[in-house]
Amino acid sequence: MISNKLPKMFYGGDYNPEQWDHGTHLEDLDLFKQAGIDIATLNVFSWARNQPDEVTYHLEWLDGYINSLYESGIYTCLATSTGAHPAWMATRYPDILRVEKDGRKRKFGGRHNSCPNSPTYRHYSVEMARRLAERYKEHPAILVWHISNEYGGECYCDNCEKAFRVWLKQRYGTLDAVNKAWNTAFWGHTFYDWDEIVVPDHRSEEWGENSSSFQGISLDYTRFNSDSMLECYQLEYDAIRSLIPDALITTNLMGFYKPLDYFKWAKQMDIVSWDNYPGLNTPVSFTALAHDLMRGLKDGDPFMLMEQTPSQQNWQPYNSLKRPGVMRLWSYQAVAHGADTVMFFQLRRSIGACEKFHGAVIEHAGHANTRVFRETSALGHELQKLGDQLLDSRIEASVAILFDWDNWWAIDKSSGPTVALQYVEQIHKYYKALYNRNVQVDIVSVDSDLSGYKLVIAPVLYMVKPGLAAKLEQFTDNGGTFVTTFFSGIVNEHDLVTTGGYPGELRKLLGIWVEEIDALLPSMHNSIEMKETIGELSGSYQCGMLCDLLHTEGADVLAEYGTDFYKGMPVLTRHAFGQGEAWYIASDGEEDFVAGLLKHLCQQQNIEPVLDTPAGVEAGRRVKNGQAFLFLLNHNAEAATVELGSLQTSNMLDNQPVGSSIEVPGNGTIILSVK
Amino acid sequence: MISNKLPKMFYGGDYNPEQWDHGTHLEDLDLFKQAGIDIATLNVFSWARNQPDEVTYHLEWLDGYINSLYESGIYTCLATSTGAHPAWMATRYPDILRVEKDGRKRKFGGRHNSCPNSPTYRHYSVEMARRLAERYKEHPAILVWHISNEYGGECYCDNCEKAFRVWLKQRYGTLDAVNKAWNTAFWGHTFYDWDEIVVPDHRSEEWGENSSSFQGISLDYTRFNSDSMLECYQLEYDAIRSLIPDALITTNLMGFYKPLDYFKWAKQMDIVSWDNYPGLNTPVSFTALAHDLMRGLKDGDPFMLMEQTPSQQNWQPYNSLKRPGVMRLWSYQAVAHGADTVMFFQLRRSIGACEKFHGAVIEHAGHANTRVFRETSALGHELQKLGDQLLDSRIEASVAILFDWDNWWAIDKSSGPTVALQYVEQIHKYYKALYNRNVQVDIVSVDSDLSGYKLVIAPVLYMVKPGLAAKLEQFTDNGGTFVTTFFSGIVNEHDLVTTGGYPGELRKLLGIWVEEIDALLPSMHNSIEMKETIGELSGSYQCGMLCDLLHTEGADVLAEYGTDFYKGMPVLTRHAFGQGEAWYIASDGEEDFVAGLLKHLCQQQNIEPVLDTPAGVEAGRRVKNGQAFLFLLNHNAEAATVELGSLQTSNMLDNQPVGSSIEVPGNGTIILSVK
Amino acid sequence: MISNKLPKMFYGGDYNPEQWDHGTHLEDLDLFKQAGIDIATLNVFSWARNQPDEVTYHLEWLDGYINSLYESGIYTCLATSTGAHPAWMATRYPDILRVEKDGRKRKFGGRHNSCPNSPTYRHYSVEMARRLAERYKEHPAILVWHISNEYGGECYCDNCEKAFRVWLKQRYGTLDAVNKAWNTAFWGHTFYDWDEIVVPDHRSEEWGENSSSFQGISLDYTRFNSDSMLECYQLEYDAIRSLIPDALITTNLMGFYKPLDYFKWAKQMDIVSWDNYPGLNTPVSFTALAHDLMRGLKDGDPFMLMEQTPSQQNWQPYNSLKRPGVMRLWSYQAVAHGADTVMFFQLRRSIGACEKFHGAVIEHAGHANTRVFRETSALGHELQKLGDQLLDSRIEASVAILFDWDNWWAIDKSSGPTVALQYVEQIHKYYKALYNRNVQVDIVSVDSDLSGYKLVIAPVLYMVKPGLAAKLEQFTDNGGTFVTTFFSGIVNEHDLVTTGGYPGELRKLLGIWVEEIDALLPSMHNSIEMKETIGELSGSYQCGMLCDLLHTEGADVLAEYGTDFYKGMPVLTRHAFGQGEAWYIASDGEEDFVAGLLKHLCQQQNIEPVLDTPAGVEAGRRVKNGQAFLFLLNHNAEAATVELGSLQTSNMLDNQPVGSSIEVPGNGTIILSVK
Repeated sequence: MISNKLPKMFYGGDYNPEQWDHGTHLEDLDLFKQAGIDIATLNVFSWARNQPDEVTYHLEWLDGYINSLYESGIYTCLATSTGAHPAWMATRYPDILRVEKDGRKRKFGGRHNSCPNSPTYRHYSVEMARRLAERYKEHPAILVWHISNEYGGECYCDNCEKAFRVWLKQRYGTLDAVNKAWNTAFWGHTFYDWDEIVVPDHRSEEWGENSSSFQGISLDYTRFNSDSMLECYQLEYDAIRSLIPDALITTNLMGFYKPLDYFKWAKQMDIVSWDNYPGLNTPVSFTALAHDLMRGLKDGDPFMLMEQTPSQQNWQPYNSLKRPGVMRLWSYQAVAHGADTVMFFQLRRSIGACEKFHGAVIEHAGHANTRVFRETSALGHELQKLGDQLLDSRIEASVAILFDWDNWWAIDKSSGPTVALQYVEQIHKYYKALYNRNVQVDIVSVDSDLSGYKLVIAPVLYMVKPGLAAKLEQFTDNGGTFVTTFFSGIVNEHDLVTTGGYPGELRKLLGIWVEEIDALLPSMHNSIEMKETIGELSGSYQCGMLCDLLHTEGADVLAEYGTDFYKGMPVLTRHAFGQGEAWYIASDGEEDFVAGLLKHLCQQQNIEPVLDTPAGVEAGRRVKNGQAFLFLLNHNAEAATVELGSLQTSNMLDNQPVGSSIEVPGNGTIILSVK
Repeated sequence: MISNKLPKMFYGGDYNPEQWDHGTHLEDLDLFKQAGIDIATLNVFSWARNQPDEVTYHLEWLDGYINSLYESGIYTCLATSTGAHPAWMATRYPDILRVEKDGRKRKFGGRHNSCPNSPTYRHYSVEMARRLAERYKEHPAILVWHISNEYGGECYCDNCEKAFRVWLKQRYGTLDAVNKAWNTAFWGHTFYDWDEIVVPDHRSEEWGENSSSFQGISLDYTRFNSDSMLECYQLEYDAIRSLIPDALITTNLMGFYKPLDYFKWAKQMDIVSWDNYPGLNTPVSFTALAHDLMRGLKDGDPFMLMEQTPSQQNWQPYNSLKRPGVMRLWSYQAVAHGADTVMFFQLRRSIGACEKFHGAVIEHAGHANTRVFRETSALGHELQKLGDQLLDSRIEASVAILFDWDNWWAIDKSSGPTVALQYVEQIHKYYKALYNRNVQVDIVSVDSDLSGYKLVIAPVLYMVKPGLAAKLEQFTDNGGTFVTTFFSGIVNEHDLVTTGGYPGELRKLLGIWVEEIDALLPSMHNSIEMKETIGELSGSYQCGMLCDLLHTEGADVLAEYGTDFYKGMPVLTRHAFGQGEAWYIASDGEEDFVAGLLKHLCQQQNIEPVLDTPAGVEAGRRVKNGQAFLFLLNHNAEAATVELGSLQTSNMLDNQPVGSSIEVPGNGTIILSVK
Repeated sequence: MISNKLPKMFYGGDYNPEQWDHGTHLEDLDLFKQAGIDIATLNVFSWARNQPDEVTYHLEWLDGYINSLYESGIYTCLATSTGAHPAWMATRYPDILRVEKDGRKRKFGGRHNSCPNSPTYRHYSVEMARRLAERYKEHPAILVWHISNEYGGECYCDNCEKAFRVWLKQRYGTLDAVNKAWNTAFWGHTFYDWDEIVVPDHRSEEWGENSSSFQGISLDYTRFNSDSMLECYQLEYDAIRSLIPDALITTNLMGFYKPLDYFKWAKQMDIVSWDNYPGLNTPVSFTALAHDLMRGLKDGDPFMLMEQTPSQQNWQPYNSLKRPGVMRLWSYQAVAHGADTVMFFQLRRSIGACEKFHGAVIEHAGHANTRVFRETSALGHELQKLGDQLLDSRIEASVAILFDWDNWWAIDKSSGPTVALQYVEQIHKYYKALYNRNVQVDIVSVDSDLSGYKLVIAPVLYMVKPGLAAKLEQFTDNGGTFVTTFFSGIVNEHDLVTTGGYPGELRKLLGIWVEEIDALLPSMHNSIEMKETIGELSGSYQCGMLCDLLHTEGADVLAEYGTDFYKGMPVLTRHAFGQGEAWYIASDGEEDFVAGLLKHLCQQQNIEPVLDTPAGVEAGRRVKNGQAFLFLLNHNAEAATVELGSLQTSNMLDNQPVGSSIEVPGNGTIILSVK
């Protein structure tokens, strides 16, 4: 359980009382109580208030808020305030200001603004964390420590350049090793001195968003940048940990956030927390995937939903309101995927600056008589009713999808064969095929233990890191089903091609040789012609984007290309490998094809969905001590009836038994306890 | 009257004889006479010629041109030449060069290139104005003083940064007041020293065109930038005024030009002048609106049409020729809306650099035998014929549309709720509904006296400045009809939200409370369902973009939303307030809806159109000493017949009486004197 | 013949053995032999390897590769390696780093990275060329010297700025002449000192890609930039030449590459070589045009096809494979248009950095058993079979199309009348009309001798340089047919308008006066209404983009505009001039119109096509010592039958006689020897 102090889902969110007067704070306390709020995240953006100069610290104002909240039954998630440095620090110590990718030095402003290799930033941020820990190490109100805020972005300053060289020395030892890893013989890039290495930005190797003359340099810089921020986090973490041995420490992540390798970060976090801000066009399946990724960061441990908006956002082009019920629905979707908290940004809406049109529990009207407040309040009382029943329960999955940040970076930086390839879209495509059937999935890293899974899917496994091929072979050899796709097995961890024939290190496992890779215009397509019926798959399916031209080396051909000069070449192969099978999908198939194939592979491996539900109704299951909890999430605007068959269940909110079917209202959620 | 020296509409335009040899100038004099030209704007871009170094001035060349023109009956509009600084000044005094929004220092080049807070610029520009005034203070040829040229753009240099801090000190007095106005408690932006404040550009608070992390900072910087340029203008103005007490001083404005608050500028101008360059897709109603805005800057005083092209422009993507008749038509459209001059850029076409494909009275062919010359010449002779009859006549309007630059800036900088909201488009939408019916409109500022109007429309009055709500209440209380729309009454002059419920300070007047604001995707719509017939309005109309979810507090509901979860909530309300009514339109309705509503409100208030005309035929009226002049402007390519009914009129160009109807040729104009 | 050492078409390409180990090199030698490869371009990107610091040179590694290749029967095209400077040079001598157009100084990285006016670059690049020449001046393996690589880009650094002023002094002599040429009286740009002149970049005169406030300045800077790089080339050339009197020296050009005036460059090259990389959407007619341009650079001399990809590229958005046969087809297309070599980039695919997904003769698989290797190998053996038969044969053309880089630059920089005008597209439009009928064409410069042609076409001859009008008059007077179009004869070589009436210096020849130029929106059109039938032209054709409004001054009107206010004005005129005719096409006509007109003009002048072929089948002819070689290139995917009529031919690959018709396979090529 996250904390024994509060044996229920924490409910609350970001609270910035420093923007308001005392009278408003008193109103807030009353409204929080009405809404069933029991946790407030304080001090996220208060660095400037906390520290007006190098030597002065004013933390006493925090005491007041922590205490008055605590007296009202509200715990504190205490941020360290280092997410945005003070103006005076930028003016007096410009090393704290980042240099943008185009080489321009920033001035004070905005939010994500501290260079992660700034000595000033590291010094003062750690000192702030240390002082906060010292001050509040025994305060009973503190439930969670929240370091900085939404780490992100990149810096290309001289300090980063120097630190990059040091990072490289530590990673490679010698310049020779660097030259080899980056293949600098190409284009005469050989480095004879560490100081000749410069940051790969728009002034040197990169000319656009996803571009580089030297993928190896850019890849390492991305790793370095992620590591640099992680070091900043770690320094604050250590400062707190050294004073509070049992502190629960986190920082709020952002789902599929490209610049940071969260698998690496999560190792340094006591609990994962994240901010869920789907856009207007984000499919619910993608939100589900993001939750599963966040859960996967720490091998299935429950996570904190640290932020979501109660109503609307402000930074989308068009910021629609969450429809009635949707805030509750999406909150429970998070819980169904492993969240043990439900928290908002924010509790009271700001009146000025760029987030004043971002929703809040307490709107600008300032009172309880709003739709948003009524909905958040109702949810608060539900969570009180649910108590600790769901806390610490787990999701059980037999299917794993392999996700890897390095692979994402390498694919995006690749020059050719196509700009159309989006790694996360491919991950989502395979995930969605399972999600639509309520098959639970774990998102795992290349370091994860795969032995507990029956089916492992690794879409576009372009980069194969050391040891991974052997692990996949072992998994398959032991009876697992392995699936991968076109543009896999191409490079090693340095983005250097494994010569001798694609898919390189995966060739033996897959029993194929890919000779060429054709890239199609978006308007062009090929087809997948099934040679036999496989499950529900038969006939012809559209494919495109990339088409591998492959030869089998032991694999069976289950489908062929239907057109072009490679008509008749294999597009879907299956390789018996030990006790298992390794499947290869040589082109980007349409959704029905992927769905049909994965359904077949699940059936082969006796992988059952949680429940069969009508379209648009998501079913999830969490389990604790043998007790299952079933979430029915109706993402349709209209009511839907879910057949429960012989399941013996009761509705957790009213404890009433439920029959063999149940109607879920439009945008509604029902949580059942399964006997 | 603008000037007694020339009791007719000035006709002429920019003339740059310094680009030509003497023989050409002599040809020009002859051609000007042929064309009926009587004013030439000189010295617009001659600073480099006038002043080859810090101490040397060569103004004697100007004498020659002023004199030879004057001897040919042509007066001078004398520019001060400070619109483009000399190269030597940029090389030797780089403080005169601007810094772009992305932080890059400019080099010499282009046109709008002087930093408004450059000590060098201020020193030498004022000295130039002073010397010109000294030299020509008694010259009879000078009709108008034209300071600089098309002030515009922004600068983000260190001098501007310093001057911004001074401007803030003057405006706010204390840093505490600044911190409060900008809500710097948000994102930890608290400033402890004035020198911590930096310019809000791409290096700090703004990342795109209409974006800011801190609306308050950006808004103030926009105001400061407008004020800085106004100070430059004012310094030259004072230099001239101190030497020539009766000088007529102006600078050429540019219609809806966002960076400069022309209402503030116009207070410092003796007469408004502006440059009218509609694009290929500019509706004629928008040009009409721009004229009305220019007239509104000085409460209805006639203005100078300082520039327009006789034929084509060069900076549009596609620069089509003005069709036969269109130059005359658009010239008279300007007059119908308040212009008392008709002037061109330019009189002779340049042979080199970026405006060589911009039209001129004398084309590259260099003679009179061109379509363009024939048309300009014909117009010149018409204007001579018209004499002073129209001069100083006024437009009488019972309808005012409120326009405010601060409101424009604030809406554009807003982060959320939608990028689709374009303030000027909304202004135009309401204007066009009246224009299409020939209802004359004044464009007024928030400082204007409203007592003379029957109907005041304030589309998207997002920002309500101090005193405005009371003024609108008084206007309505006295029997006026007030109309405003969605996203109004949200913030004060600092862009800080008025809490307690939207529309804030307008809530009492409108009798409503707006609880939420929904933003729709461009592809989405809602509908306005009329509850009763109002004038010609009945049934259903499309709406979208933003949808306020509102509750009445005294107002009547005249229409409701037709769909979505707020179906049945009010979308059109009317609040009886004193002797008048306050209307609220909660969403962006289609044109027919706006047209029908405004027609009804005009009829209620007995506001009559100038005349009923066929579609595409604009009718305008100017009045002088009880004498009305009627402009019939046919914007169609085909002829149209206008019914005059019982009006007793005569054609001002031939003094012939006109019957009960008259045919206006395609692209033709007829000006009638009404008995 | 290019070289007596190898009496056949050189076959090979770029080879970078420094990226590989020795074992791989030995495999390469074997594979090269299998593929019939006999030339390898070495040392293109080896500067860093060759020279690790200022004083140390390591060229001995090259000896090994040159020798081992030579022993395997493979000659060397020796690059000087100066296409990419070493990292240490950038770090220690930053003057070698360019400044981008936006004013940002580059760091080390990328490829085209040396400032052409860098003293460091000039010093070390020449020294490298000198040392290579010294070392290999007597080596029998060296066939060709390849200076640097794909010169290109621009620099805007302070050294370039200073060198630009010197270049201007040399060109103009006095500042007065510069001021006049640039028309600096416009916008007060007068320069009083050379040091006031700055580079025209985004900091000064240019704000986008094709934009400038001062066309004259921008035009001269473009010339200067081309000249600066040419000087770099020339310095290396001289270093080699001084040591090797009979060296064959080239650099690889890039077809229609805008920044460099290749006509000027070619004068300094012993043989033209170029890199042919058509994109996915490049029409085959455009590739043909590019080959003809490259051949035209040296008045019809055969050229080297220095680079093409054997299979796919990597820098296109979508990099499709060359379909089976296409590599061979496009290789022979090059030969048909004058290539005397067939060479690839590259011989073995890199494993890392941005070109690892660019095709190569030896793919990542590393062996001969690939489609790509089989196709390249087959072609290699064909070329061996063809021997020297085709070498040094010529293309004979009676039609010339005039192309001029200055004209291209000036049109693109023009502000107005339309952004739609693309000079090269217009060149291609006229070329394609001839290409489609297999009429052979020379692309000539404004300096070329026109006396050998019957038909000269100069689309959009906007800029008329000194002497050109007289030359065109003489050509026509002597019986030639001259064709030009709208927007011609506008400016002189300084981009200053020739006043008095368009088309300026061409007015006498064309017998017309263009009064105005209308620009249409892309959605708008006019029509060409034929007054009489001319060849196959009759009735009505669409036109648009630009429409000249013209009056005849001696010319006959053959077609008129069909609509708009200039309906009935001439759109196609013919002027009898001496013994010839000068035609003017006043608007951008549709392809059928251009095709019909050019067919008629060819027939008038008895200009015969090479052969009548089915659509998509290109026929080309090279001639040597009275012996004709006929190329039949089928660009269709399907086979096509070509009628040869009474031609007595034999297939050059099997020496078998061919009858009166022959089937060419889809994507196939047949080469016939004509008796």
